Amino acid sequence: MPDAQLHALDAATALTPTARDTYQGQTDARYAHRVGPFGGITAATMLKAVMVHPDRQGEPIALTVNYAQPIADEPFVVEALAVRTNRSTQHWNVTMRQGGTVVTTASAVLAVRRDTWTSTEVQFPAAVPVSALQRVASPEAPVWFANYDVRIAQGLPLDTSRPVAEQDSITTLWVRDEPPRPLDFVSLASICDVFVPRIMVRRPVRVPAGTVSLTTYFHADSAKLADCGTAHLLGSAQASHFGMGYHDQTAQVWSPDRVLLATTHQIVYFKE
Amino acid sequence: MPDAQLHALDAATALTPTARDTYQGQTDARYAHRVGPFGGITAATMLKAVMVHPDRQGEPIALTVNYAQPIADEPFVVEALAVRTNRSTQHWNVTMRQGGTVVTTASAVLAVRRDTWTSTEVQFPAAVPVSALQRVASPEAPVWFANYDVRIAQGLPLDTSRPVAEQDSITTLWVRDEPPRPLDFVSLASICDVFVPRIMVRRPVRVPAGTVSLTTYFHADSAKLADCGTAHLLGSAQASHFGMGYHDQTAQVWSPDRVLLATTHQIVYFKE
Repeated sequence: MPDAQLHALDAATALTPTARDTYQGQTDARYAHRVGPFGGITAATMLKAVMVHPDRQGEPIALTVNYAQPIADEPFVVEALAVRTNRSTQHWNVTMRQGGTVVTTASAVLAVRRDTWTSTEVQFPAAVPVSALQRVASPEAPVWFANYDVRIAQGLPLDTSRPVAEQDSITTLWVRDEPPRPLDFVSLASICDVFVPRIMVRRPVRVPAGTVSLTTYFHADSAKLADCGTAHLLGSAQASHFGMGYHDQTAQVWSPDRVLLATTHQIVYFKE
Repeated sequence: MPDAQLHALDAATALTPTARDTYQGQTDARYAHRVGPFGGITAATMLKAVMVHPDRQGEPIALTVNYAQPIADEPFVVEALAVRTNRSTQHWNVTMRQGGTVVTTASAVLAVRRDTWTSTEVQFPAAVPVSALQRVASPEAPVWFANYDVRIAQGLPLDTSRPVAEQDSITTLWVRDEPPRPLDFVSLASICDVFVPRIMVRRPVRVPAGTVSLTTYFHADSAKLADCGTAHLLGSAQASHFGMGYHDQTAQVWSPDRVLLATTHQIVYFKE
């Protein structure tokens, strides 16, 4: 039984050490997608295996997660190996297995960060304030969606009412954990996957689609994430190309006071 | 001695099988960077280990390469493991070692592609024709640069003459192998790393900088790459954020007839 004291995100990403580099975990029904769990919670679980590892040095700057096959609703083993530790960077390989079969692979790069010249070149998206928007409450949404307070400023999925002239794949939305939870790398890794496959916005028709590989770059340190508290973050996602069964998409995730927290990229399978 | 018949790219990425999943290779002085080899040739080598593996199924859709430490100018071993083969996708982990130490890790996703709905949402960059530009010939360029015919339409590195008002990190350039070589996944994987760290364009000052992790999504199949022959490709790169020692950058690589071949992302270390 899940611990009622724990936030659902912490329960879903809970890992019990079983050896030096291995942990046992368990899928959580509250983060179920249509087949297997929400990709975001899997990304968060892979990163958490690094974050709680006693050998960890530094904070994440890059995370790539490859969804090798659907995860069954049963226990899994996560192995996290520090394959290389340098003075200021550390490289990790993370593997999730069920019954000995690889279901997810990941790599993470951590770094000891320090102040340097700084500039944000991408623009903070234009969006109405979170207070002016209603939380999305779709009866068709997958189960995991109930763990997020999402308010869409632009680019609803499956919106057949949109003028053809506006057909792009952009979605701009506010998002936070529901119930609210202070932001950290684990929750941000999951939030980076809340943007539905862009094919559902661009066309918009319902076709089978799912993330195959996800890469996130973290531009903030833990102090900046903590500064966000439980506030809604602003995210904006767009595809660049659809074809031959796959499309990419890129998103930026910002704090409400315009700090770019992460840029995230993925390649998505779609059926037709 | 390198085989004079072989293109330098093929010689530099040559792999000799030593066991079922392992190969031996050797750095090539022609692709030397300031410390270790050009990151593009390493990415190409990691992908080649998958491309020549007898178990390969499908063509690359995603490649992530993590540069764990500088590669020494000596032989290396590449291990390529198909960690999961599905009906239409295949997941690979690739590791490069020298003297038993991990120097580079990579993951690749391959897919059997088929025709679907298609659309390119990102815009083909505005650029003067390749014939109107001179090849870059910089005495300060690293050795590997001589293997590319690069013609910069916008965004020279270290250009202190630029008006401050134009300070962004965009570079738009034409590029092909030099001497010309028919395009394939291996050469495209390398070309995706020809865009110098954006910090050198944005500020522009010379600071130590280097790619830490690189992810490329391939939007074309081998037939579309072959269609490009030895033509110059058009690439455009830009950063979204610089700070705390790292910046990201994203680039698109296009065929001259406006087919988007790849989108590529990286996180780059910079010193100050």
